Amino acid sequence: MGENLEDQKKLHQQILLNTALENKDIHNFRDEFLSLHPYDQARFFIEIDPVHRKQVYYFLSPKEMAFLFEQLEIEDEEYRKLLSEMLPQYAADVLSYMFTDNAVDVLNILEKDQVASYLTMMDQGEAQEIKDLLHYEEYTAGSIMTTEYVAIEASQTVRSAMFILKNEAAKAEMIYYLYVIDEEKRLVGVLSLRDLIIEEDDTMITEIMNDRVVYVSVSDDQEDIARRMKDYNFLAIPVVDFQRHLLGIITIDDIVDVIDEEASEDYSKLAAVSDMDSPSKSPFSAAKKRLPWLIVLLFLGMFTASLIGRFEDTLKQVALLAVFIPLIGGMAGNTGTQALAVAVRGIATGDVNEESKWKLILREAGTGFITGATCGILIMIIVYVWKGELFLGLLVGISILASLVVATMSGSLIPLLMDKLNIDPAVASGPFITTINDIISILIYFGMANLFMNHLI
Amino acid sequence: MGENLEDQKKLHQQILLNTALENKDIHNFRDEFLSLHPYDQARFFIEIDPVHRKQVYYFLSPKEMAFLFEQLEIEDEEYRKLLSEMLPQYAADVLSYMFTDNAVDVLNILEKDQVASYLTMMDQGEAQEIKDLLHYEEYTAGSIMTTEYVAIEASQTVRSAMFILKNEAAKAEMIYYLYVIDEEKRLVGVLSLRDLIIEEDDTMITEIMNDRVVYVSVSDDQEDIARRMKDYNFLAIPVVDFQRHLLGIITIDDIVDVIDEEASEDYSKLAAVSDMDSPSKSPFSAAKKRLPWLIVLLFLGMFTASLIGRFEDTLKQVALLAVFIPLIGGMAGNTGTQALAVAVRGIATGDVNEESKWKLILREAGTGFITGATCGILIMIIVYVWKGELFLGLLVGISILASLVVATMSGSLIPLLMDKLNIDPAVASGPFITTINDIISILIYFGMANLFMNHLI
Repeated sequence: MGENLEDQKKLHQQILLNTALENKDIHNFRDEFLSLHPYDQARFFIEIDPVHRKQVYYFLSPKEMAFLFEQLEIEDEEYRKLLSEMLPQYAADVLSYMFTDNAVDVLNILEKDQVASYLTMMDQGEAQEIKDLLHYEEYTAGSIMTTEYVAIEASQTVRSAMFILKNEAAKAEMIYYLYVIDEEKRLVGVLSLRDLIIEEDDTMITEIMNDRVVYVSVSDDQEDIARRMKDYNFLAIPVVDFQRHLLGIITIDDIVDVIDEEASEDYSKLAAVSDMDSPSKSPFSAAKKRLPWLIVLLFLGMFTASLIGRFEDTLKQVALLAVFIPLIGGMAGNTGTQALAVAVRGIATGDVNEESKWKLILREAGTGFITGATCGILIMIIVYVWKGELFLGLLVGISILASLVVATMSGSLIPLLMDKLNIDPAVASGPFITTINDIISILIYFGMANLFMNHLI
Repeated sequence: MGENLEDQKKLHQQILLNTALENKDIHNFRDEFLSLHPYDQARFFIEIDPVHRKQVYYFLSPKEMAFLFEQLEIEDEEYRKLLSEMLPQYAADVLSYMFTDNAVDVLNILEKDQVASYLTMMDQGEAQEIKDLLHYEEYTAGSIMTTEYVAIEASQTVRSAMFILKNEAAKAEMIYYLYVIDEEKRLVGVLSLRDLIIEEDDTMITEIMNDRVVYVSVSDDQEDIARRMKDYNFLAIPVVDFQRHLLGIITIDDIVDVIDEEASEDYSKLAAVSDMDSPSKSPFSAAKKRLPWLIVLLFLGMFTASLIGRFEDTLKQVALLAVFIPLIGGMAGNTGTQALAVAVRGIATGDVNEESKWKLILREAGTGFITGATCGILIMIIVYVWKGELFLGLLVGISILASLVVATMSGSLIPLLMDKLNIDPAVASGPFITTINDIISILIYFGMANLFMNHLI
């Protein structure tokens, strides 16, 4: 990509922009700055100090600032800080020039009276559109949809549809699909801009539109919508109410963010980092997020300890037993995590459902048996060769076999149960499953050791 | 969404389609089938038996089958099976009607002589385009790009660009960006279809095109490209060689798949399921995938066991020591996984880089100290209250403190080291880090126990 050349160009640009800001040179600044992609504008803007940022507010129109604002990916506090730096009317204008869905995202992190004051400073129609969207619950279609779509009527021709499109192109968020509605604003069809431009001007929309529209309901979960858009390869999907009135559209860029967020979320939960803590946060804030989990696990661990405590006499007689505690617990924990990961991803992608769930649990039990038998025989041989203890080897081997079967089954059963109870199965994090399986495997190990004590001494 | 109504409609469709297939009624079948979205066509097609599928091959043209084929998301063997069901010339035609990038994906899973035979049956130009793409390495821009883009020249007007677009619209994969090239096919600009349709017919392309094009190099990694497209909210990105010649474009639907795959991959690695095994696979194939990891961990576990074995005399004297082995090992393992997850995601999203990496390791050490001290003090109190053993409590508490500091540091240090050595840091999976930290924590625990033996007896 010629990284060095690119980097040099970027550095040169930054120097130009900074000099223009220093000199309050509005012309050079605007020339250079507005030729950048809004994402690059945003990256420059967020790096400079507040004094220079104030200068930028004077140099850019609210509309230009709105484009930049759409591209920011910053923490909630930073949004609040930036808005507080602007004159209130300027901030209100920036928000009203943003696409409605993005403006709503920003407004959602502000105080209620702050939101109200911005809304009163906006154009009535715009304020109403924003108010409508503010009602929708987080993680639903309503919360991520935008109202800037292009709608046409079925009775139109290609020519008149093209005319509408040209007029709305500048302010619509996505112009590559046109949604066809009837007199009552009910969604009846869709056509792509591609269809439109290859057709003759006099063709009727009804003739070329696709009347089997795939749509989502305003209360649908964003994760389900993401899966649907990924399956159909759509750039946007229409959102309707229960009477099929068109309310808005969800665009692919928001869906990319949803997929990314949900994946991060599942990942952090598997590792029991309740909320993904950003690597730049302080150790105190990181510790605060992780401690609740660790303390739960500490008490679970204490429970394990008290279980082993009951076998203190056994341990005194055969101290060698203790040697294999971490091995058996560890193997059970690891296998459980593997089974958990398969089940959680399967539920998330829809591969695992009501019908196939028993098949999965049986499959996992089978997998546990095969891996358990292999590892069990292996360990038996090792213990026999290493310590010359056939019976101890047998005990450890059978414990591993039993633990692995139980661990794989619980690893798939627990997330499936949680899903059934409408709890996000990803909450059954790795460490939790690990600890549960630790306890079970140690019970099996010491239980068996106790039974066959006379063979061990 | 009126799920029940939708479901009933779908069922009705399926019955219609199946009846048409039974009766060899080509007209009814085509009427109904071709009105479905290709994704729904694909879902119906993949569910029916081979005899009915053969019927479908007779009913659909290769071009219609190609649209359906683009939407299939099936295993490699299934692609091979479907192609072998078709007449060779039909199969070759289907492949040549597919978008080049998707045809290449399918060809990549076939035997070399099979590929060669299909290529000879294709149109020369199409075969050449496919051959060019077959060369690129997996996971690079070249391997996921398509050559069906729309290119125009800078010297054209809006009118002539629109004319080209109308001609190419039917066969281009993405017509919403037009890439501007010079006489030597070098990429010099880009404009969106949105820009094109709002401009006057006589405007020159040079006047309205954006000459600061964001592009990627053909050898760039697909994960980096995904991040870039997500940042810029592009629907497509151009791919160039080192002299900036335009070679192809990557479209957002492929990027959505990349993001999803990479997230799944990181997730499975954290759980040490080397390749995400599909929930529908047999226990043998699942066991085969998991066993290598489990056996590595088994040997690491044996190493832990042999370490504890060295303290057999200590254990014989104070059997109570064994009681806390799983607790200490478990806490260290869990904390390590948390630190690992933060580091791996940080590296993946670019939040953690050369400069910030020492800050992260220090941050993690700090987090380990705070969580370790909290849990350590807690456990000391519990052990004192429960067993009345102040010194044992102190020993367990300090061991937890030391283990957690080491575990958080190794959890972030190991993936950072791997990244430095150009190994995918996600390979440092949860169970691996867990086992490493198990070993370290037990060394700390028994090491200290041995030192202060006289206080314990």
